[in-house]
Amino acid sequence: MITATYEVPWSEHLMERAESIAIGMTIGAWDDVHPLRQKELRAFRGEVGFVTQVSAEVGRFSIHYPVQNIKPTIGSLLTVVFGKLSLDGAIRLVGLDLPAEFTQHFPGPALGLPGLRAKFGVHHRPFVMSIFKRENGARLDEFTEAFEQQLAGGVDWIKDDEIFFHDDNAPLFERIQVARKLLDERLERTGQKGFYAPNLVGTPKEILGTARAAVEQGADGFLVSPYVVGLDILIDLRREGIEVPIIAHPAFVGGTIAPHPYGIAPDILLGQLPRLAGADIVLFPSPYGSLGMNRNLALAVHQRHIEPSRVPEVVSGPSAGIHAGLIAQLIEDFGYDIVVNAGSAIHGHPHGTEAGARVLMDTVREVCHEL
Amino acid sequence: MITATYEVPWSEHLMERAESIAIGMTIGAWDDVHPLRQKELRAFRGEVGFVTQVSAEVGRFSIHYPVQNIKPTIGSLLTVVFGKLSLDGAIRLVGLDLPAEFTQHFPGPALGLPGLRAKFGVHHRPFVMSIFKRENGARLDEFTEAFEQQLAGGVDWIKDDEIFFHDDNAPLFERIQVARKLLDERLERTGQKGFYAPNLVGTPKEILGTARAAVEQGADGFLVSPYVVGLDILIDLRREGIEVPIIAHPAFVGGTIAPHPYGIAPDILLGQLPRLAGADIVLFPSPYGSLGMNRNLALAVHQRHIEPSRVPEVVSGPSAGIHAGLIAQLIEDFGYDIVVNAGSAIHGHPHGTEAGARVLMDTVREVCHEL
Repeated sequence: MITATYEVPWSEHLMERAESIAIGMTIGAWDDVHPLRQKELRAFRGEVGFVTQVSAEVGRFSIHYPVQNIKPTIGSLLTVVFGKLSLDGAIRLVGLDLPAEFTQHFPGPALGLPGLRAKFGVHHRPFVMSIFKRENGARLDEFTEAFEQQLAGGVDWIKDDEIFFHDDNAPLFERIQVARKLLDERLERTGQKGFYAPNLVGTPKEILGTARAAVEQGADGFLVSPYVVGLDILIDLRREGIEVPIIAHPAFVGGTIAPHPYGIAPDILLGQLPRLAGADIVLFPSPYGSLGMNRNLALAVHQRHIEPSRVPEVVSGPSAGIHAGLIAQLIEDFGYDIVVNAGSAIHGHPHGTEAGARVLMDTVREVCHEL
Repeated sequence: MITATYEVPWSEHLMERAESIAIGMTIGAWDDVHPLRQKELRAFRGEVGFVTQVSAEVGRFSIHYPVQNIKPTIGSLLTVVFGKLSLDGAIRLVGLDLPAEFTQHFPGPALGLPGLRAKFGVHHRPFVMSIFKRENGARLDEFTEAFEQQLAGGVDWIKDDEIFFHDDNAPLFERIQVARKLLDERLERTGQKGFYAPNLVGTPKEILGTARAAVEQGADGFLVSPYVVGLDILIDLRREGIEVPIIAHPAFVGGTIAPHPYGIAPDILLGQLPRLAGADIVLFPSPYGSLGMNRNLALAVHQRHIEPSRVPEVVSGPSAGIHAGLIAQLIEDFGYDIVVNAGSAIHGHPHGTEAGARVLMDTVREVCHEL
């Protein structure tokens, strides 16, 4: 059974509401079904798990949904457990227990945390990623220069800004070639590996076609915003044989994970589901910096990225407004199994992008006693 | 320019915040860009439209985004205008002005309201659609019987339940064949046209493949839940040459359109965007019945479906818990350019599904003086 837990305003009629949901979201009706047919249909019927009052105002209940009712896609899962229900007044999805019988059909990350640690030889510190800024309108020579500077600063990975769509002046395949060349040069010079994740955009069909072509052109990573394109695009990318790291950006998810009493708990939507669908690196707002997610919620998201599961752990990216001054706190709270991901702090450094990247990298090494 | 309007808690520093967003979500940085380069980059730079205080607590501001920064997909649009911003505390997207320069790249509905009126010969009343219920676990003979009864009751269109995924006992292509045959028989007997919209499910790639194959098998309509799969799947379906009516189901959107101060106004997400992307019929919670969207918000969604625009009007489906007793009110509030869409009221009728469908159909005709 897939068990979903919900919070709603407490009411003495909560058991009736839960029972109506358990039937309504599975078998549609029950009492007027012939007893012989009931026997056959029982396997499709939802059941109430528990109903409880958690405070004077808040009630909580759980529903068990038969696994066979739900196709192994995130879309099908969300349509059943929080499709129509999402529109049913004040109701929030706060828990989702997915049995191996369901999760076994999902690809999970191509590399995940263990694969990325092995591939990049980074074992005793967080990864460090630099975000391109000012990409809109940038020419290829500007892209190249900024890429060189970020690399020279020693960061592991470099990704596009998620708002970078208009790339006529620095087209995707040309950026990939420049990045490939500069990464190879650095590898030869210093032994440090890295990758560049361009922003993978378009309709679902365009995204899949572009990803295939880009990998042929030497792409070794991608940035995707799966909350606008649908998380199942990650499943498709994995099934298409895309084995390079995919970074999931949280764009657009804010409205859905916003505080009670609506929407979905962030640890489900930013933690559990992108890991299952196939992201390797999952970005979310850190408790510090410019977006400031509630600390407990951010830690819960992180926990979902590294808790035991059938699919590999993913690299957790508590992001937005990260700068060197926050790194000690970030590592104290989240540990080493994260990516320190920064953009404005790097490019806005008074001594330039290379210096900004180096300060970030050195601070991470220092905190991790690598210096 | 694409103009997005936001509501946030009022602050005396709102102009600064708006300016920081206008730069941050477009060009990244401005003041430290060389004046000569500034000249070149000005075309990529966002601008603040207005900043105003609407009440003691609420401020409103607008940002103009250059059209060229945004690719013509819903995903790209939402990533720029409400991607990272959706995570920026209490902020709600309340308006979105899209110029023809942008919307011209979108397919819009295949048929829309005018095309559906012409195709089905229904001109002076709302369309009537019946929703399958109790589909999980149903056998093909049960599907056939329920389909016959709904048709016999005289409804125009019949659609799957959006939670219907496990169709081993009544597979998609077999359902389509049954529906095709029964619809053709009724057309010959009574002259009344109709269509059947099966639930189109899977990953984006699976959805596109299934849609093509299903149309070859005689499918003449589809139900899609675009808020879990991403609205751009509609663009892909249109581009694939799928010209049958597509019904957009609001599953999962509740968390994002929930009341202030987060998320997105429902008229944007359930009104403006699915019409642009390519839905023909857009379902949303009516102010009555079982979900009960705020009446003004539901009317605003409807208005978006029929207001003048570059793409055809779509059929508006104020839904959920609709029964005969609500039809007069529904038509008084929303007019004729809607689909009256019901499920439980039809199948739960004491004299059976056919009687339930007939009561609904007769009531619509009666209210519209067709009886």
